[in-house]
Amino acid sequence: MSSKTMVVAALASLMGAAYAGSAFSQAKPDVQVKQRQSVMTLQGKYFGPINLMASGKMPFDANVASRNAAFLETLAKMPWDNFSPDTQGEKSRALPEVFKDAGKFKEAQDRFIGDAAKLAAAAKSGNEASFKTAAADVGKACAACHEAFRSK
Amino acid sequence: MSSKTMVVAALASLMGAAYAGSAFSQAKPDVQVKQRQSVMTLQGKYFGPINLMASGKMPFDANVASRNAAFLETLAKMPWDNFSPDTQGEKSRALPEVFKDAGKFKEAQDRFIGDAAKLAAAAKSGNEASFKTAAADVGKACAACHEAFRSK
Repeated sequence: MSSKTMVVAALASLMGAAYAGSAFSQAKPDVQVKQRQSVMTLQGKYFGPINLMASGKMPFDANVASRNAAFLETLAKMPWDNFSPDTQGEKSRALPEVFKDAGKFKEAQDRFIGDAAKLAAAAKSGNEASFKTAAADVGKACAACHEAFRSK
Repeated sequence: MSSKTMVVAALASLMGAAYAGSAFSQAKPDVQVKQRQSVMTLQGKYFGPINLMASGKMPFDANVASRNAAFLETLAKMPWDNFSPDTQGEKSRALPEVFKDAGKFKEAQDRFIGDAAKLAAAAKSGNEASFKTAAADVGKACAACHEAFRSK
């Protein structure tokens, strides 16, 4: 097992429990909204330069790509437990579909989480072409979820 | 080298470039403040239950402890490149000492990053006593940095 494989396996094990219920759902609805919006802000911080590199607007830098993609992979797992039903009355851009169609929302989450993991692996490989393809997939996953579950 | 040590070493290598200049520092000062405050919000999200468990106000749950500590370990690395000098004019609780004494501020960051890594390792071990000691150290690192670098 290469050290890279071990890291990926160990990280998967570290993060694996992330969807098995939650001690977080005790937070008040307004705090939950602030928390999930904070995650989105940080996803933007790290995906921004990835997107610029992937679209050729910034020179490819393998170190920045792999660092940002690793952060994004972790951040991709964070916001979902903050969409509890009691947040429906809070001011936010979340559409009612988030709560009406929890199954479809979960599918959109899983797509993004999976694509972010693939991007992190591609970025770590240092292969620019794989990185660009994976970055485009992440961008599409973001857009699809926003289209279905976030107001314009 | 244990797999745990390899993970720590590999993560250090992955994240090592995070302080060597940055593709992030292009962000506007107000965006940087929003980003760093978002990290602090999420550190609170994950440290909150850790603190409650460590102080006996919530039953110890090894899965929640290790998941939260792993997230906190990653989040500990994120805010610092958002304290660029051009953020000094922005409304925030950052004290002038952040910019006047960059060396001491960096020491406080490194203390927190190191203590958060130790907490993640302790939480992963499942040993409640080690977890409590490590959690207390993280709490002290938070408090020391806030005392020196954040207004009341």
